[in-house]
Amino acid sequence: MIVVVKPGTPEGELERLVEFIQNQGYRTHLSRGVERTIVGIIGDEPLTLRDRLYGIRCVDEVIPILKPYKLVARAAKPSGTVFEVRGVTIGGSSIPVMAGPCTVENEQMLLETARRVKAAGASILRGGAYKPSTSPYSFHGMGEDGLRILAAARDETGLPVITEVMDTRDVELVARYADILQVGTRNMANFSLLREIGQSRLPVMLKRGWASNIEEWLQAAEYLASGGDEKIILCERGIRTFEQATRNTFDINAIPVVKDLSHLPVIADPSHGTGRSALVPAVALAAIAAGADGLMIEVHPDPSKALKDGAQSLTFDAFEAMMADAAKVAEAVGRQLGGHAA
Amino acid sequence: MIVVVKPGTPEGELERLVEFIQNQGYRTHLSRGVERTIVGIIGDEPLTLRDRLYGIRCVDEVIPILKPYKLVARAAKPSGTVFEVRGVTIGGSSIPVMAGPCTVENEQMLLETARRVKAAGASILRGGAYKPSTSPYSFHGMGEDGLRILAAARDETGLPVITEVMDTRDVELVARYADILQVGTRNMANFSLLREIGQSRLPVMLKRGWASNIEEWLQAAEYLASGGDEKIILCERGIRTFEQATRNTFDINAIPVVKDLSHLPVIADPSHGTGRSALVPAVALAAIAAGADGLMIEVHPDPSKALKDGAQSLTFDAFEAMMADAAKVAEAVGRQLGGHAA
Amino acid sequence: MIVVVKPGTPEGELERLVEFIQNQGYRTHLSRGVERTIVGIIGDEPLTLRDRLYGIRCVDEVIPILKPYKLVARAAKPSGTVFEVRGVTIGGSSIPVMAGPCTVENEQMLLETARRVKAAGASILRGGAYKPSTSPYSFHGMGEDGLRILAAARDETGLPVITEVMDTRDVELVARYADILQVGTRNMANFSLLREIGQSRLPVMLKRGWASNIEEWLQAAEYLASGGDEKIILCERGIRTFEQATRNTFDINAIPVVKDLSHLPVIADPSHGTGRSALVPAVALAAIAAGADGLMIEVHPDPSKALKDGAQSLTFDAFEAMMADAAKVAEAVGRQLGGHAA
Amino acid sequence: MIVVVKPGTPEGELERLVEFIQNQGYRTHLSRGVERTIVGIIGDEPLTLRDRLYGIRCVDEVIPILKPYKLVARAAKPSGTVFEVRGVTIGGSSIPVMAGPCTVENEQMLLETARRVKAAGASILRGGAYKPSTSPYSFHGMGEDGLRILAAARDETGLPVITEVMDTRDVELVARYADILQVGTRNMANFSLLREIGQSRLPVMLKRGWASNIEEWLQAAEYLASGGDEKIILCERGIRTFEQATRNTFDINAIPVVKDLSHLPVIADPSHGTGRSALVPAVALAAIAAGADGLMIEVHPDPSKALKDGAQSLTFDAFEAMMADAAKVAEAVGRQLGGHAA
Repeated sequence: MIVVVKPGTPEGELERLVEFIQNQGYRTHLSRGVERTIVGIIGDEPLTLRDRLYGIRCVDEVIPILKPYKLVARAAKPSGTVFEVRGVTIGGSSIPVMAGPCTVENEQMLLETARRVKAAGASILRGGAYKPSTSPYSFHGMGEDGLRILAAARDETGLPVITEVMDTRDVELVARYADILQVGTRNMANFSLLREIGQSRLPVMLKRGWASNIEEWLQAAEYLASGGDEKIILCERGIRTFEQATRNTFDINAIPVVKDLSHLPVIADPSHGTGRSALVPAVALAAIAAGADGLMIEVHPDPSKALKDGAQSLTFDAFEAMMADAAKVAEAVGRQLGGHAA
Repeated sequence: MIVVVKPGTPEGELERLVEFIQNQGYRTHLSRGVERTIVGIIGDEPLTLRDRLYGIRCVDEVIPILKPYKLVARAAKPSGTVFEVRGVTIGGSSIPVMAGPCTVENEQMLLETARRVKAAGASILRGGAYKPSTSPYSFHGMGEDGLRILAAARDETGLPVITEVMDTRDVELVARYADILQVGTRNMANFSLLREIGQSRLPVMLKRGWASNIEEWLQAAEYLASGGDEKIILCERGIRTFEQATRNTFDINAIPVVKDLSHLPVIADPSHGTGRSALVPAVALAAIAAGADGLMIEVHPDPSKALKDGAQSLTFDAFEAMMADAAKVAEAVGRQLGGHAA
Repeated sequence: MIVVVKPGTPEGELERLVEFIQNQGYRTHLSRGVERTIVGIIGDEPLTLRDRLYGIRCVDEVIPILKPYKLVARAAKPSGTVFEVRGVTIGGSSIPVMAGPCTVENEQMLLETARRVKAAGASILRGGAYKPSTSPYSFHGMGEDGLRILAAARDETGLPVITEVMDTRDVELVARYADILQVGTRNMANFSLLREIGQSRLPVMLKRGWASNIEEWLQAAEYLASGGDEKIILCERGIRTFEQATRNTFDINAIPVVKDLSHLPVIADPSHGTGRSALVPAVALAAIAAGADGLMIEVHPDPSKALKDGAQSLTFDAFEAMMADAAKVAEAVGRQLGGHAA
Repeated sequence: MIVVVKPGTPEGELERLVEFIQNQGYRTHLSRGVERTIVGIIGDEPLTLRDRLYGIRCVDEVIPILKPYKLVARAAKPSGTVFEVRGVTIGGSSIPVMAGPCTVENEQMLLETARRVKAAGASILRGGAYKPSTSPYSFHGMGEDGLRILAAARDETGLPVITEVMDTRDVELVARYADILQVGTRNMANFSLLREIGQSRLPVMLKRGWASNIEEWLQAAEYLASGGDEKIILCERGIRTFEQATRNTFDINAIPVVKDLSHLPVIADPSHGTGRSALVPAVALAAIAAGADGLMIEVHPDPSKALKDGAQSLTFDAFEAMMADAAKVAEAVGRQLGGHAA
């Protein structure tokens, strides 16, 4: 951590600053430039220290040097995290596609969707049993009934199941049915939930908060990792910007940035990243070309009848066409779809 | 709701669109312009209908007309919501100031702070017992011990207490000690938590999500209101923008916008809205000039020793100076500080 | 245009509103919903009318229906704009790559770069002779000497030349040397400059303003088109968001959105879109996968010696590697690199 | 400037990095932390050096320490810049208000407006003769005729005149009529224009770019100052964010931030900062409470007939009411309206 001292600070005040830092147990390193004096702090860089330093009058700026995460940093596992979920490899050269409806609406629609997306090459089934809904009057998901339907679809198709959990009180129940727990964009920084999920020992997919920067996202992953989780998947799903032509702005830069900073697999959700079904295939292909380790795609038998997110769901036909194109792009970058060991 | 039809849509497809809408139970209104045909939908405007319409090929755009909130809209109570919390009036002409430390650190510091902010004119005591912390290694608050200390400070000073609750499982416990429950910026759209808090029947202060627009904020308030809550306070605390000179960008426009759209009281949190103690007084005064119904200010006996948010906490002296200035600005706009009936 | 009337507006005021609109020469269409009355305005939708309507007390909201551009809308040329610049086809199935240094530094470095990027498959040479520089003390480009060097490199390599013009007074001079004029991100909405450029009759590449939404970008293109320009290229180069890990956030969604809304070719500039050379290849590939009609890439013989933008410039080796990968991705989406008729 | 070296960098590479920096003429300062090695660079911090360093493989991050401006920094003139324009003091304790129509539409309307705003307490007349207009079909201002009308209004009322110049070719002409030249938000970083304006030797008002951060804004002011300008006024006019309820988000934080960082006077434009006339008074009062040194307000005899920006223009009555309230708030913060020496 670098502390930039205000110009014109008297020598005595500077000494008291250095003493303050050393009293917290840090070694310091003083450097006097032409215009500015800076104090280097050697060792850890807790946020609280930064905040306290700002409480001292002669401090102009406190600049962190170390990244606020270690366990999930690339350096901790240079070869990258790879793990299996019921035979599907995540983080490997082969790219798994998670597909299914926004929400489990009933058994028939889910089973039909599961069969069709599997036939088209998907390797993991997604579906919401609990839904965050901005209106108290909207549908909030089928709850445990939805979880049972997901499990039934897994039994029939063999596809492992990913589903979101939103309430600390539901973690245990959801964990009984799901193969991967999903932390939604609203909950990326819901630390009570992260703690509870960590105890389930299930793989977790951590969506980026729509207004969270990459560093905060990796800090949330660190939070999970520090509780012992090793099977963490990151999911870029778009951020909020001034652009209103799309529901979110899919941050394609984040894919190579995260691959560089972290050893965790990162997958792309172009359904939320665009919010419009017509744009989903182009952005899905782009994500693979940029190095994404997977896709998450909303698919619905009839989007004009969907209980939620009809605007961004692909029909079966559109999903099949996208998968055919995605397979070619995967091959162009030396990979293949599937998530199965080559 | 207005549905804009794609140019060149054949008559038959247009008819099927109208039929689809009518089958959902809505009356329609067709209008053919020079370049575009639009279908007006008369009645409610659920988000699901909008999403489904986007699943239909000839639909170009769906434009909502009605606001997605009714109970908290200004029209529902043109004179504005006014209520009392242990003798402090919120929403009236007199402006209450909530002050206290970010976090309850121990009994001594909280009592000292409570006495000092009361002496300076604050009418409500704030203090965190549970803290959202981006690092798993940081301090997460004293929990129930912190709540007990808050209650003790209330007993001594008479100041009602506001504190944040972050986990559905803690609501009942926190509600036993607090006078107002605070929903933090991370949880504005945590609907499980909003539902649980609604059942406590306590007044609620709903902070704006840092990446939520005003409409979404009022929708979250509607969520609370639809559960029966009537004592809701809105709190503007800054939004995330590209500007990095301050921790957040305090949205001063939001004050008059919300006063126009809603009957709920709206207060300002310049501590989080700026993130730097030196900027807090200027923005506090600005918020009062813009029509805010209250302030929430972080105050700490010694910010350089604070466990959290030292950078944005005022010292006692700075708080006193700010209150003296704020009193003059309040008077300039025909109000006074205190939250006490004139 | 749809005018939403405030609830509770007296009948007489509504009549005066309708009369006001009709007096401006528009037909109107009144629709009374359950909660809201709306007035449809049939015909053109000038911004001035919208602004004036907001000057009328009973007007709650004015919602545009028509897009604020016609000439560049997809409907005006459904097959897409395709044109040639010295034998290079832009907008066709084959994808031209524009490459070269940020700034022309001297003849030797430009010629070397031109030869190397041509050998690697680039079909257009880029290089700045005038540079926008945030500091008055920085290098501002070589001016006409730089233009002469660009022309010499074209003579030797046969690569057409694109360069930026920033000042209305320079347009004529730059147009004497360049094959394509570039409008930079700072100048997207510099209408004096757009007018002047329009008179050159040269093809124009219009970069998206870093804080401009897609609609404003297409309006600026419309501005050029309304002056008679037909050879317009759009260039996505990233937008400003809260994310600071990259210089800009490359808006990958914009590629398919613009292809849908407009018939103009759209190319991608991942150098500015990321600001970091290590990220450029991944985002270049992503842009092609998403449907971009071209790339613009900064290349420098030795980025550690560049006068400008060293951080985002590729070395020759990195550019060659990127081109090899890009060729494979282009093929995967049924295209090829080059910009030459198949 | 601080260079953070990648972990695991071999000693030899580190030595070459240090040599590279010293060869550019800088002294260095090496500091080895527990996890990271950093190289401090002593002396100036040109952007080009930063960019070049990023071209070197072992460089992980380059962190500037010095502000990229000196002449306009508070330290260069701690007491603040104060100057006079035809008897109106800018930067002093008394607060001048600039008022007038967005655009000069004809002589009669301008004279009427000038008289009325003067009577209400305004001390400077604003009005556009050249207008940036997003549509080629819109009104672009009266040009020199508009300038003549502004000068006539000055002759009659004694109010000095501020007007925008947008094209390098117009600077000389506009400077013959105006007392203060305005650089609009689109042109904050139009360096050709800034250079040209600098040569006029007139006072300049520099609006903040809608997507520019405070540091970039002060850099643009430095650009003017480095050309010899001393009479520079900064104007906060709102930034672009995700919030769409208002045309811009007025950055109230920027007022105290700029007062702290720079000695230049900073004024507020709540007309553009909100885009809606009903919100202008609240934000104008807020700006004064936050420490703004002036206001710029759009006023029109009949906003429903305005050629431009009707939505955000105040009527005469609304302006008068606002001025009465603003006077009280100014007094509350120890100042008064007018811009006249006490």
